[in-house]
Amino acid sequence: MTPGKSAEAARPARRRLSVDRRREELMAAALELFSKHDAEDVSIDDVASAAGASRALVYHYFGGKQELYVAALKSAAEQLESRLRPDQGGRPLDDLAAGLGRYFDFVEEHAAGFAALLRGGPANRAGEIGEIVDGVRQRLFRLIQKQMRVEHPSPVLRTTLRSWIASVETAGLDWLEHRDIERPVLEKMLVDHMIALLGVAAEYDGDVRSLFEGLAAEQFGG
Amino acid sequence: MTPGKSAEAARPARRRLSVDRRREELMAAALELFSKHDAEDVSIDDVASAAGASRALVYHYFGGKQELYVAALKSAAEQLESRLRPDQGGRPLDDLAAGLGRYFDFVEEHAAGFAALLRGGPANRAGEIGEIVDGVRQRLFRLIQKQMRVEHPSPVLRTTLRSWIASVETAGLDWLEHRDIERPVLEKMLVDHMIALLGVAAEYDGDVRSLFEGLAAEQFGG
Repeated sequence: MTPGKSAEAARPARRRLSVDRRREELMAAALELFSKHDAEDVSIDDVASAAGASRALVYHYFGGKQELYVAALKSAAEQLESRLRPDQGGRPLDDLAAGLGRYFDFVEEHAAGFAALLRGGPANRAGEIGEIVDGVRQRLFRLIQKQMRVEHPSPVLRTTLRSWIASVETAGLDWLEHRDIERPVLEKMLVDHMIALLGVAAEYDGDVRSLFEGLAAEQFGG
Repeated sequence: MTPGKSAEAARPARRRLSVDRRREELMAAALELFSKHDAEDVSIDDVASAAGASRALVYHYFGGKQELYVAALKSAAEQLESRLRPDQGGRPLDDLAAGLGRYFDFVEEHAAGFAALLRGGPANRAGEIGEIVDGVRQRLFRLIQKQMRVEHPSPVLRTTLRSWIASVETAGLDWLEHRDIERPVLEKMLVDHMIALLGVAAEYDGDVRSLFEGLAAEQFGG
Protein backbone atom coordinates (compact mmCIF):
# COMPACT_ATOMS: atom_id res chain seq x y z
CA MET A 1 0.00 0.00 0.00
CA THR A 2 1.48 3.36 -0.97
CA PRO A 3 1.36 6.23 1.52
CA GLY A 4 -0.92 8.14 -0.84
CA LYS A 5 -3.47 5.36 -1.03
CA SER A 6 -3.47 4.91 2.73
CA ALA A 7 -4.18 8.60 3.25
CA GLU A 8 -7.03 8.45 0.78
CA ALA A 9 -8.60 5.43 2.46
CA ALA A 10 -8.35 7.12 5.83
CA ARG A 11 -10.03 10.33 4.69
CA PRO A 12 -13.71 9.27 4.99
CA ALA A 13 -13.09 7.86 8.47
CA ARG A 14 -11.34 11.05 9.56
CA ARG A 15 -14.08 13.13 8.09
CA ARG A 16 -16.74 11.06 9.88
CA LEU A 17 -14.84 11.49 13.11
CA SER A 18 -14.68 15.22 12.69
CA VAL A 19 -18.41 15.40 11.90
CA ASP A 20 -19.19 13.48 15.09
CA ARG A 21 -16.81 15.62 17.08
CA ARG A 22 -18.30 18.85 15.69
CA ARG A 23 -21.77 17.61 16.57
CA GLU A 24 -20.65 16.76 20.09
CA GLU A 25 -19.04 20.16 20.50
CA LEU A 26 -22.29 21.83 19.49
CA MET A 27 -24.26 19.67 21.94
CA ALA A 28 -21.78 20.41 24.73
CA ALA A 29 -22.15 24.14 24.09
CA ALA A 30 -25.94 23.73 24.03
CA LEU A 31 -25.98 21.77 27.33
CA GLU A 32 -23.84 24.44 28.95
CA LEU A 33 -26.44 27.06 27.93
CA PHE A 34 -29.50 24.91 28.70
CA SER A 35 -28.06 24.16 32.15
CA LYS A 36 -28.16 27.85 33.04
CA HIS A 37 -31.14 29.21 31.12
CA ASP A 38 -34.66 28.19 30.23
CA ALA A 39 -34.87 26.60 26.79
CA GLU A 40 -37.00 29.51 25.54
CA ASP A 41 -34.24 31.97 26.46
CA VAL A 42 -31.52 30.17 24.46
CA SER A 43 -31.24 30.91 20.72
CA ILE A 44 -29.49 29.04 17.95
CA ASP A 45 -27.25 32.09 17.65
CA ASP A 46 -26.23 31.73 21.31
CA VAL A 47 -25.28 28.09 20.77
CA ALA A 48 -23.42 28.85 17.53
CA SER A 49 -21.46 31.66 19.06
CA ALA A 50 -20.64 29.63 22.22
CA ALA A 51 -19.30 26.81 20.02
CA GLY A 52 -17.49 29.15 17.63
CA ALA A 53 -19.64 27.83 14.79
CA SER A 54 -21.98 29.39 12.27
CA ARG A 55 -25.72 29.51 12.74
CA ALA A 56 -26.02 27.58 9.47
CA LEU A 57 -23.88 24.74 10.80
CA VAL A 58 -26.14 24.31 13.85
CA TYR A 59 -29.19 24.18 11.56
CA HIS A 60 -27.33 21.78 9.28
CA TYR A 61 -26.63 19.31 12.09
CA PHE A 62 -29.82 19.60 14.13
CA GLY A 63 -32.54 21.18 12.01
CA GLY A 64 -33.72 23.60 14.70
CA LYS A 65 -33.58 24.60 18.34
CA GLN A 66 -36.12 22.10 19.66
CA GLU A 67 -34.28 19.25 17.89
CA LEU A 68 -30.96 20.47 19.29
CA TYR A 69 -32.47 20.67 22.80
CA VAL A 70 -33.88 17.15 22.51
CA ALA A 71 -30.61 15.76 21.10
CA ALA A 72 -28.51 17.41 23.81
CA LEU A 73 -30.73 16.20 26.68
CA LYS A 74 -30.92 12.74 25.13
CA SER A 75 -27.16 12.53 24.94
CA ALA A 76 -26.81 13.61 28.60
CA ALA A 77 -29.48 11.09 29.65
CA GLU A 78 -27.77 8.29 27.72
CA GLN A 79 -24.43 9.07 29.29
CA LEU A 80 -25.97 8.99 32.76
CA GLU A 81 -27.98 5.85 32.07
CA SER A 82 -24.97 4.01 30.64
CA ARG A 83 -23.43 4.35 34.11
CA LEU A 84 -26.50 2.95 35.83
CA ARG A 85 -26.21 -0.65 34.69
CA PRO A 86 -27.13 -3.11 37.41
CA ASP A 87 -24.28 -4.64 39.40
CA GLN A 88 -24.12 -8.38 39.55
CA GLY A 89 -25.12 -9.85 42.85
CA GLY A 90 -23.33 -7.81 45.49
CA ARG A 91 -25.04 -7.01 48.77
CA PRO A 92 -27.85 -4.50 48.06
CA LEU A 93 -26.38 -1.61 50.05
CA ASP A 94 -22.93 -2.15 48.51
CA ASP A 95 -24.51 -2.13 45.05
CA LEU A 96 -26.38 1.06 45.99
CA ALA A 97 -23.14 2.71 47.14
CA ALA A 98 -21.35 1.63 43.94
CA GLY A 99 -24.20 2.94 41.78
CA LEU A 100 -24.22 6.22 43.67
CA GLY A 101 -20.48 6.56 43.05
CA ARG A 102 -21.05 6.20 39.30
CA TYR A 103 -23.96 8.69 39.47
CA PHE A 104 -21.65 11.25 41.08
CA ASP A 105 -18.94 10.49 38.48
CA PHE A 106 -21.49 11.74 35.96
CA VAL A 107 -22.41 14.75 38.12
CA GLU A 108 -18.74 15.70 38.32
CA GLU A 109 -17.72 14.97 34.71
CA HIS A 110 -20.90 16.26 33.05
CA ALA A 111 -22.01 19.07 35.32
CA ALA A 112 -23.79 20.94 32.52
CA GLY A 113 -25.65 17.85 31.30
CA PHE A 114 -26.74 17.01 34.84
CA ALA A 115 -28.02 20.53 35.52
CA ALA A 116 -29.76 20.70 32.12
CA LEU A 117 -31.58 17.43 32.83
CA LEU A 118 -32.72 18.63 36.26
CA ARG A 119 -34.16 21.85 34.91
CA GLY A 120 -36.86 19.43 33.81
CA GLY A 121 -38.13 19.36 37.39
CA PRO A 122 -39.87 16.66 39.38
CA ALA A 123 -43.37 17.27 37.97
CA ASN A 124 -44.64 14.75 35.45
CA ARG A 125 -44.06 16.06 31.99
CA ALA A 126 -45.73 15.46 28.71
CA GLY A 127 -43.82 15.42 25.43
CA GLU A 128 -40.39 14.35 24.30
CA ILE A 129 -38.41 16.27 26.95
CA GLY A 130 -40.61 14.85 29.71
CA GLU A 131 -39.96 11.33 28.45
CA ILE A 132 -36.20 11.85 28.53
CA VAL A 133 -36.15 13.34 32.04
CA ASP A 134 -38.69 10.93 33.55
CA GLY A 135 -36.91 8.08 31.78
CA VAL A 136 -33.70 8.63 33.76
CA ARG A 137 -35.62 8.78 37.03
CA GLN A 138 -37.62 5.66 36.23
CA ARG A 139 -34.50 3.77 35.27
CA LEU A 140 -32.90 4.72 38.56
CA PHE A 141 -36.04 3.71 40.44
CA ARG A 142 -36.14 0.30 38.75
CA LEU A 143 -32.41 -0.21 39.32
CA ILE A 144 -32.77 0.38 43.07
CA GLN A 145 -35.88 -1.80 43.13
CA LYS A 146 -33.81 -4.56 41.52
CA GLN A 147 -30.89 -4.08 43.90
CA MET A 148 -33.34 -4.50 46.78
CA ARG A 149 -35.05 -7.44 45.07
CA VAL A 150 -38.50 -5.86 45.35
CA GLU A 151 -41.01 -6.70 42.62
CA HIS A 152 -44.03 -4.64 43.62
CA PRO A 153 -43.15 -1.70 45.84
CA SER A 154 -45.85 -0.72 48.36
CA PRO A 155 -47.03 2.93 48.37
CA VAL A 156 -44.81 3.68 51.37
CA LEU A 157 -41.73 2.13 49.71
CA ARG A 158 -42.49 3.88 46.39
CA THR A 159 -42.72 7.28 48.10
CA THR A 160 -39.57 6.58 50.10
CA LEU A 161 -37.49 5.59 47.05
CA ARG A 162 -38.76 8.52 44.96
CA SER A 163 -38.03 10.89 47.84
CA TRP A 164 -34.52 9.52 48.19
CA ILE A 165 -33.86 9.89 44.44
CA ALA A 166 -35.04 13.51 44.64
CA SER A 167 -32.79 14.16 47.60
CA VAL A 168 -29.80 12.67 45.72
CA GLU A 169 -30.50 14.95 42.73
CA THR A 170 -30.64 17.99 44.98
CA ALA A 171 -27.50 16.93 46.86
CA GLY A 172 -25.75 16.61 43.47
CA LEU A 173 -26.74 20.14 42.45
CA ASP A 174 -25.82 21.50 45.87
CA TRP A 175 -22.43 19.81 45.60
CA LEU A 176 -21.76 21.31 42.16
CA GLU A 177 -22.71 24.71 43.52
CA HIS A 178 -20.64 24.63 46.73
CA ARG A 179 -18.21 21.69 46.67
CA ASP A 180 -17.66 22.14 50.39
CA ILE A 181 -18.23 18.49 51.32
CA GLU A 182 -15.83 15.78 50.12
CA ARG A 183 -17.55 13.66 47.48
CA PRO A 184 -16.91 10.30 49.23
CA VAL A 185 -18.31 11.75 52.48
CA LEU A 186 -21.42 13.04 50.72
CA GLU A 187 -21.94 9.71 48.95
CA LYS A 188 -21.61 7.80 52.22
CA MET A 189 -24.05 10.18 53.88
CA LEU A 190 -26.60 9.62 51.08
CA VAL A 191 -26.37 5.84 51.52
CA ASP A 192 -26.89 6.40 55.25
CA HIS A 193 -29.92 8.55 54.31
CA MET A 194 -31.38 5.61 52.42
CA ILE A 195 -30.88 3.28 55.38
CA ALA A 196 -32.45 5.85 57.73
CA LEU A 197 -35.42 6.48 55.40
CA LEU A 198 -36.05 2.75 55.03
CA GLY A 199 -35.88 2.51 58.82
CA VAL A 200 -38.63 5.14 59.08
CA ALA A 201 -40.69 3.49 56.33
CA ALA A 202 -40.40 0.15 58.17
CA GLU A 203 -42.40 1.68 61.01
CA TYR A 204 -45.24 2.50 58.63
CA ASP A 205 -45.37 -0.60 56.45
CA GLY A 206 -44.97 -4.32 57.05
CA ASP A 207 -43.49 -4.96 53.58
CA VAL A 208 -40.74 -2.40 54.17
CA ARG A 209 -40.13 -3.89 57.63
CA SER A 210 -39.39 -7.30 56.08
CA LEU A 211 -37.23 -5.68 53.39
CA PHE A 212 -35.35 -3.63 55.99
CA GLU A 213 -34.69 -6.64 58.20
CA GLY A 214 -33.52 -8.64 55.18
CA LEU A 215 -31.14 -5.87 54.07
CA ALA A 216 -29.73 -5.52 57.58
CA ALA A 217 -29.24 -9.29 57.92
CA GLU A 218 -27.51 -9.46 54.54
CA GLN A 219 -25.34 -6.44 55.18
CA PHE A 220 -24.34 -6.89 58.78
CA GLY A 221 -24.90 -10.61 59.27
CA GLY A 222 -28.28 -11.96 60.41
CA MET B 1 -80.42 56.51 49.65
CA THR B 2 -82.76 55.39 46.84
CA PRO B 3 -82.48 51.84 45.52
CA GLY B 4 -81.41 53.28 42.14
CA LYS B 5 -78.53 55.23 43.61
CA SER B 6 -77.34 52.28 45.64
CA ALA B 7 -77.24 50.07 42.56
CA GLU B 8 -75.24 52.70 40.72
CA ALA B 9 -72.73 53.05 43.54
CA ALA B 10 -72.30 49.29 43.66
CA ARG B 11 -71.62 48.90 39.94
CA PRO B 12 -67.89 49.80 39.86
CA ALA B 13 -67.21 47.48 42.79
CA ARG B 14 -69.11 44.64 41.12
CA ARG B 15 -67.35 45.31 37.88
CA ARG B 16 -63.97 45.31 39.62
CA LEU B 17 -64.85 42.03 41.28
CA SER B 18 -65.81 40.46 38.02
CA VAL B 19 -62.59 41.68 36.36
CA ASP B 20 -60.56 40.13 39.18
CA ARG B 21 -62.55 36.94 39.01
CA ARG B 22 -62.15 36.71 35.22
CA ARG B 23 -58.42 37.23 35.61
CA GLU B 24 -58.26 34.50 38.24
CA GLU B 25 -60.24 32.12 36.06
CA LEU B 26 -57.79 32.67 33.22
CA MET B 27 -54.83 32.08 35.53
CA ALA B 28 -56.42 28.93 36.93
CA ALA B 29 -56.93 27.60 33.39
CA ALA B 30 -53.33 28.52 32.56
CA LEU B 31 -51.95 26.77 35.68
CA GLU B 32 -53.92 23.67 34.82
CA LEU B 33 -52.27 23.61 31.37
CA PHE B 34 -48.79 24.61 32.61
CA SER B 35 -48.95 21.86 35.23
CA LYS B 36 -49.23 19.23 32.50
CA HIS B 37 -47.24 20.66 29.60
CA ASP B 38 -44.05 22.56 29.00
CA ALA B 39 -44.62 26.30 28.73
CA GLU B 40 -43.50 26.23 25.09
CA ASP B 41 -46.25 23.71 24.25
CA VAL B 42 -49.08 25.84 25.68
CA SER B 43 -50.59 28.54 23.47
CA ILE B 44 -52.76 31.54 24.30
CA ASP B 45 -55.48 29.83 22.27
CA ASP B 46 -55.26 26.75 24.54
CA VAL B 47 -55.70 28.92 27.62
CA ALA B 48 -58.54 30.92 26.09
CA SER B 49 -60.42 27.84 25.01
CA ALA B 50 -59.87 26.09 28.40
CA ALA B 51 -61.30 29.15 30.18
CA GLY B 52 -64.15 29.65 27.67
CA ALA B 53 -62.75 33.09 26.86
CA SER B 54 -61.58 34.80 23.71
CA ARG B 55 -57.95 35.00 22.70
CA ALA B 56 -58.33 38.79 22.72
CA LEU B 57 -59.43 38.76 26.38
CA VAL B 58 -56.32 36.82 27.43
CA TYR B 59 -54.12 39.33 25.60
CA HIS B 60 -56.13 42.17 27.12
CA TYR B 61 -55.54 40.94 30.68
CA PHE B 62 -51.98 39.65 30.41
CA GLY B 63 -50.34 41.07 27.29
CA GLY B 64 -48.82 37.78 26.13
CA LYS B 65 -48.02 34.20 26.98
CA GLN B 66 -44.82 34.81 28.91
CA GLU B 67 -46.59 37.44 31.04
CA LEU B 68 -49.49 35.07 31.66
CA TYR B 69 -47.05 32.29 32.63
CA VAL B 70 -45.18 34.57 35.02
CA ALA B 71 -48.44 35.91 36.53
CA ALA B 72 -49.87 32.41 37.01
CA LEU B 73 -46.71 31.02 38.65
CA LYS B 74 -46.37 34.13 40.80
CA SER B 75 -49.92 33.75 42.03
CA ALA B 76 -49.33 30.05 42.87
CA ALA B 77 -46.08 30.93 44.66
CA GLU B 78 -47.78 33.70 46.64
CA GLN B 79 -50.56 31.39 47.73
CA LEU B 80 -48.06 28.79 48.87
CA GLU B 81 -45.83 31.32 50.60
CA SER B 82 -48.77 32.94 52.42
CA ARG B 83 -49.21 29.58 54.18
CA LEU B 84 -45.58 29.38 55.18
CA ARG B 85 -45.54 32.12 57.80
CA PRO B 86 -43.41 31.27 60.80
CA ASP B 87 -45.20 29.88 63.84
CA GLN B 88 -44.64 31.64 67.10
CA GLY B 89 -42.48 29.79 69.53
CA GLY B 90 -43.71 26.19 69.50
CA ARG B 91 -41.26 23.32 69.79
CA PRO B 92 -39.29 23.13 66.52
CA LEU B 93 -40.57 19.72 65.42
CA ASP B 94 -44.16 20.69 66.22
CA ASP B 95 -43.75 23.87 64.17
CA LEU B 96 -42.28 21.78 61.36
CA ALA B 97 -45.25 19.41 61.46
CA ALA B 98 -47.70 22.34 61.47
CA GLY B 99 -45.91 23.98 58.54
CA LEU B 100 -45.91 20.71 56.61
CA GLY B 101 -49.65 20.41 57.19
CA ARG B 102 -50.20 23.84 55.66
CA TYR B 103 -47.87 22.93 52.76
CA PHE B 104 -49.99 19.87 52.01
CA ASP B 105 -53.17 21.97 52.31
CA PHE B 106 -51.77 23.90 49.36
CA VAL B 107 -50.79 20.70 47.52
CA GLU B 108 -54.34 19.40 47.92
CA GLU B 109 -56.25 22.63 47.23
CA HIS B 110 -54.00 23.92 44.44
CA ALA B 111 -52.77 20.77 42.76
CA ALA B 112 -52.27 22.48 39.38
CA GLY B 113 -50.38 25.42 40.87
CA PHE B 114 -48.13 23.06 42.84
CA ALA B 115 -47.32 20.90 39.79
CA ALA B 116 -46.76 23.98 37.59
CA LEU B 117 -44.28 25.38 40.12
CA LEU B 118 -42.38 22.09 40.32
CA ARG B 119 -42.00 21.85 36.57
CA GLY B 120 -39.51 24.59 37.32
CA GLY B 121 -37.11 21.88 38.52
CA PRO B 122 -34.41 21.82 41.15
CA ALA B 123 -31.62 23.26 38.95
CA ASN B 124 -30.71 26.88 39.56
CA ARG B 125 -32.56 29.00 37.07
CA ALA B 126 -31.89 32.35 35.57
CA GLY B 127 -34.68 34.77 34.74
CA GLU B 128 -38.06 35.64 36.19
CA ILE B 129 -39.44 32.08 36.38
CA GLY B 130 -36.30 30.88 38.13
CA GLU B 131 -36.66 33.62 40.72
CA ILE B 132 -40.25 32.64 41.47
CA VAL B 133 -39.48 28.93 41.83
CA ASP B 134 -36.23 29.36 43.76
CA GLY B 135 -37.95 32.00 45.89
CA VAL B 136 -40.45 29.48 47.29
CA ARG B 137 -37.70 26.99 48.06
CA GLN B 138 -35.52 29.61 49.71
CA ARG B 139 -38.39 30.85 51.82
CA LEU B 140 -39.07 27.31 52.96
CA PHE B 141 -35.37 26.79 53.71
CA ARG B 142 -35.20 29.97 55.79
CA LEU B 143 -38.41 29.09 57.59
CA ILE B 144 -37.05 25.70 58.67
CA GLN B 145 -33.74 27.32 59.59
CA LYS B 146 -35.68 29.73 61.81
CA GLN B 147 -37.77 26.96 63.36
CA MET B 148 -34.53 25.19 64.27
CA ARG B 149 -32.93 28.43 65.45
CA VAL B 150 -29.90 27.99 63.21
CA GLU B 151 -28.23 31.16 61.93
CA HIS B 152 -25.45 29.81 59.73
CA PRO B 153 -26.13 26.27 58.54
CA SER B 154 -23.01 24.12 58.00
CA PRO B 155 -22.53 22.45 54.59
CA VAL B 156 -23.85 19.15 55.99
CA LEU B 157 -26.96 20.81 57.47
CA ARG B 158 -27.55 22.84 54.30
CA THR B 159 -27.42 19.69 52.12
CA THR B 160 -29.65 17.82 54.56
CA LEU B 161 -32.34 20.53 54.66
CA ARG B 162 -32.30 20.99 50.88
CA SER B 163 -32.53 17.23 50.39
CA TRP B 164 -35.47 17.04 52.76
CA ILE B 165 -37.28 19.88 50.97
CA ALA B 166 -36.76 18.06 47.64
CA SER B 167 -38.10 14.85 49.12
CA VAL B 168 -41.19 16.66 50.43
CA GLU B 169 -41.84 18.14 46.97
CA THR B 170 -41.56 14.73 45.38
CA ALA B 171 -43.75 13.14 48.06
CA GLY B 172 -46.36 15.84 47.34
CA LEU B 173 -46.36 15.06 43.62
CA ASP B 174 -46.45 11.33 44.27
CA TRP B 175 -49.39 11.82 46.61
CA LEU B 176 -51.32 13.84 44.01
CA GLU B 177 -50.63 11.11 41.47
CA HIS B 178 -51.58 8.10 43.60
CA ARG B 179 -53.36 9.23 46.79
CA ASP B 180 -52.82 5.77 48.24
CA ILE B 181 -51.36 6.96 51.56
CA GLU B 182 -53.50 8.93 54.02
CA ARG B 183 -52.30 12.54 54.10
CA PRO B 184 -51.79 12.67 57.90
CA VAL B 185 -49.75 9.44 57.72
CA LEU B 186 -47.59 10.80 54.90
CA GLU B 187 -47.06 14.09 56.75
CA LYS B 188 -46.05 12.26 59.91
CA MET B 189 -43.67 10.07 57.93
CA LEU B 190 -42.03 13.15 56.37
CA VAL B 191 -41.45 14.68 59.81
CA ASP B 192 -39.92 11.34 60.86
CA HIS B 193 -37.76 11.56 57.71
CA MET B 194 -36.44 14.92 58.88
CA ILE B 195 -35.60 13.53 62.33
CA ALA B 196 -33.87 10.51 60.75
CA LEU B 197 -31.92 12.68 58.26
CA LEU B 198 -30.77 15.01 61.05
CA GLY B 199 -29.75 11.92 63.01
CA VAL B 200 -27.56 10.83 60.07
CA ALA B 201 -26.17 14.35 59.60
CA ALA B 202 -25.30 14.47 63.32
CA GLU B 203 -22.84 11.63 62.71
CA TYR B 204 -21.04 13.75 60.10
CA ASP B 205 -21.02 17.17 61.66
CA GLY B 206 -20.54 18.51 65.19
CA ASP B 207 -22.88 21.48 64.64
CA VAL B 208 -25.72 19.20 63.58
CA ARG B 209 -24.98 16.95 66.57
CA SER B 210 -25.55 19.86 68.96
CA LEU B 211 -28.66 20.91 67.06
CA PHE B 212 -30.02 17.35 67.07
CA GLU B 213 -29.43 16.92 70.80
CA GLY B 214 -31.08 20.28 71.47
CA LEU B 215 -34.13 19.37 69.37
CA ALA B 216 -34.44 15.99 71.06
CA ALA B 217 -34.15 17.54 74.52
CA GLU B 218 -36.77 20.18 73.70
CA GLN B 219 -39.13 17.70 72.09
CA PHE B 220 -38.89 14.75 74.41
CA GLY B 221 -37.52 16.31 77.59
CA GLY B 222 -33.75 16.66 78.16
